[in-house]
Amino acid sequence: MKTLLLDALQCRNKSRPPIWLMRQAGRYMPEYRALRAKHSFLEMCHQPELIAEITQLPIRAFGMDAAILFSDILVIPEALGVGLRFEDGVGPIIERPLNSAQDVAKLLSIDMHDRLNYVVDGIRLLKPTLNVPLIGFCGAPFTMASYMIEGGSSRDLRKTKQWMLSDPTSFHQLMDHLAECAIASLEMQIDAGVQAVQIFESWAGMLACAQLREFSFAYLDKIVKRIGTKVPVILFCRGASSLIPETIKMNPQGISIDWNADLAAVRQIVPPTMAIQGNLDPHVLCAPLHVVRKEAKRLLEEMRGHPGYIFNLGHGITPDVPVDAVKTLIECVQNH
Amino acid sequence: MKTLLLDALQCRNKSRPPIWLMRQAGRYMPEYRALRAKHSFLEMCHQPELIAEITQLPIRAFGMDAAILFSDILVIPEALGVGLRFEDGVGPIIERPLNSAQDVAKLLSIDMHDRLNYVVDGIRLLKPTLNVPLIGFCGAPFTMASYMIEGGSSRDLRKTKQWMLSDPTSFHQLMDHLAECAIASLEMQIDAGVQAVQIFESWAGMLACAQLREFSFAYLDKIVKRIGTKVPVILFCRGASSLIPETIKMNPQGISIDWNADLAAVRQIVPPTMAIQGNLDPHVLCAPLHVVRKEAKRLLEEMRGHPGYIFNLGHGITPDVPVDAVKTLIECVQNH
Repeated sequence: MKTLLLDALQCRNKSRPPIWLMRQAGRYMPEYRALRAKHSFLEMCHQPELIAEITQLPIRAFGMDAAILFSDILVIPEALGVGLRFEDGVGPIIERPLNSAQDVAKLLSIDMHDRLNYVVDGIRLLKPTLNVPLIGFCGAPFTMASYMIEGGSSRDLRKTKQWMLSDPTSFHQLMDHLAECAIASLEMQIDAGVQAVQIFESWAGMLACAQLREFSFAYLDKIVKRIGTKVPVILFCRGASSLIPETIKMNPQGISIDWNADLAAVRQIVPPTMAIQGNLDPHVLCAPLHVVRKEAKRLLEEMRGHPGYIFNLGHGITPDVPVDAVKTLIECVQNH
Repeated sequence: MKTLLLDALQCRNKSRPPIWLMRQAGRYMPEYRALRAKHSFLEMCHQPELIAEITQLPIRAFGMDAAILFSDILVIPEALGVGLRFEDGVGPIIERPLNSAQDVAKLLSIDMHDRLNYVVDGIRLLKPTLNVPLIGFCGAPFTMASYMIEGGSSRDLRKTKQWMLSDPTSFHQLMDHLAECAIASLEMQIDAGVQAVQIFESWAGMLACAQLREFSFAYLDKIVKRIGTKVPVILFCRGASSLIPETIKMNPQGISIDWNADLAAVRQIVPPTMAIQGNLDPHVLCAPLHVVRKEAKRLLEEMRGHPGYIFNLGHGITPDVPVDAVKTLIECVQNH
């Protein structure tokens, strides 16, 4: 078992930094597209054999230093009974979006073992086949809620913000319920064998700081306190780089940084005992290979000697990335 | 003439903070929609009488402490010959997007006096009617380039980034040309009577920090150096809150802060001689009026006693904002 990732999460890595890529099992891979041609995205998330197979694809093809469970942040909302489907070219659709405090009260209680057992089965199939650590994950409560309220992706989270601002009490109830679900889901994943987890607050940048503190960080803090005693937790609050000083206060084992932030400056403010992950702009992977190398080396130099640095992107990899660019990036980091 | 805005830009305001709103003459106003029903958006930008009329609408209706010239950041690209139209429900369309270094070489030289004289005429009509300072503006070079390359709005600026990363030389030529155009346009506006200017780097958040420094800040710095000696310059680098320490180094008279940043924390790092503008989330204006007051007061308290604070939004006002919310906000700030 390669332990680079776990060493880095303890800030004890004396070797080169580990590398994995957000959404590394994705449409940019021909092997993924071949499976996707035969199965719907939800089938791929629901079937343990497919979860195991897809999670391994990028490890086999490129040899990243960690695997991240193939799943989706919306499997929890689905398990709560709001209905989920994916439409090509549109993205996720929540079939029965939440509209009122009554809808929150009607959400299913979280008995994840009944309704997310396929995730556990997938992890159990997968674990014996992996020679790298397995990262589990979930969406943060606010990010999950935004889909459940908007009914899908949204450019401005208008309904979510209106609810949050005009009825904070029921919004807090929703956040609290989702935080418990996130904890239950992560605990299940940990019991099944994941060795670290990442929490995706993908829409943190949509919130003004006061709201982010009240409706996001308060719940992330709770999750980190409960889960961080079991396995290392990486927090990814996308679009909230200006609030890194407050993110740090939640004391996760690692923070994942979006592409906006200057990693050298981040290094100055993050305690030396906290791992830092990021933050290559995934669009760099569509540039000529010499640019891929140049930009990767820039980050490697900025983080040189940091025992907790984890090389990653500042956001998920995009479908248009050429396979050669990923190969080049992985080689560049692993030969550093 | 009310001087609160100009006092604040000199950090010498001992009274309550001035307030104006980005895109304050916009679709949320019934008077604006009535004019828009009779004229295309481009006609509204091109006709001096309409420019003057529309600029005044919000001042008459709400009594903001500053007017911002009604125009669009794309009038410069239009003047450079790439073709511009606006489609309802789509937004701006650049008819002949830039595809290559050759296209950059073919751009018209900037003789703005010939091709933007309607802006000057609009300002001259407008000035005698105003009892508040008039703010001019332009798009930053990178933001203008992004529209010229993408052909319109884009979620990811993919083509722009690819060009920038794979052929930085010609991209720099484009930035240089657009910086000269921005300077020429701002000088014309100043000669015609605007008393301060704001530069909109609306897509700053799309760039990783290394690229932002090289392809955006280098040119903003040049513009600030040339224009800041004439009138106060406000820089708005949207999505780049984590790089405020570097934005400050360009030494603009004011910086406008998007809604993500914590204004109290920003206040700690911005020199006391630099004005700070922002940063209410415009979505707050769609919330109940007591929430509008509460959130406005939060900002007012955070910035209490700062002689350079300018109340504004963290982004342009949206069409769905109720007129009553704007009235409430203005009253709340002006009675503070």
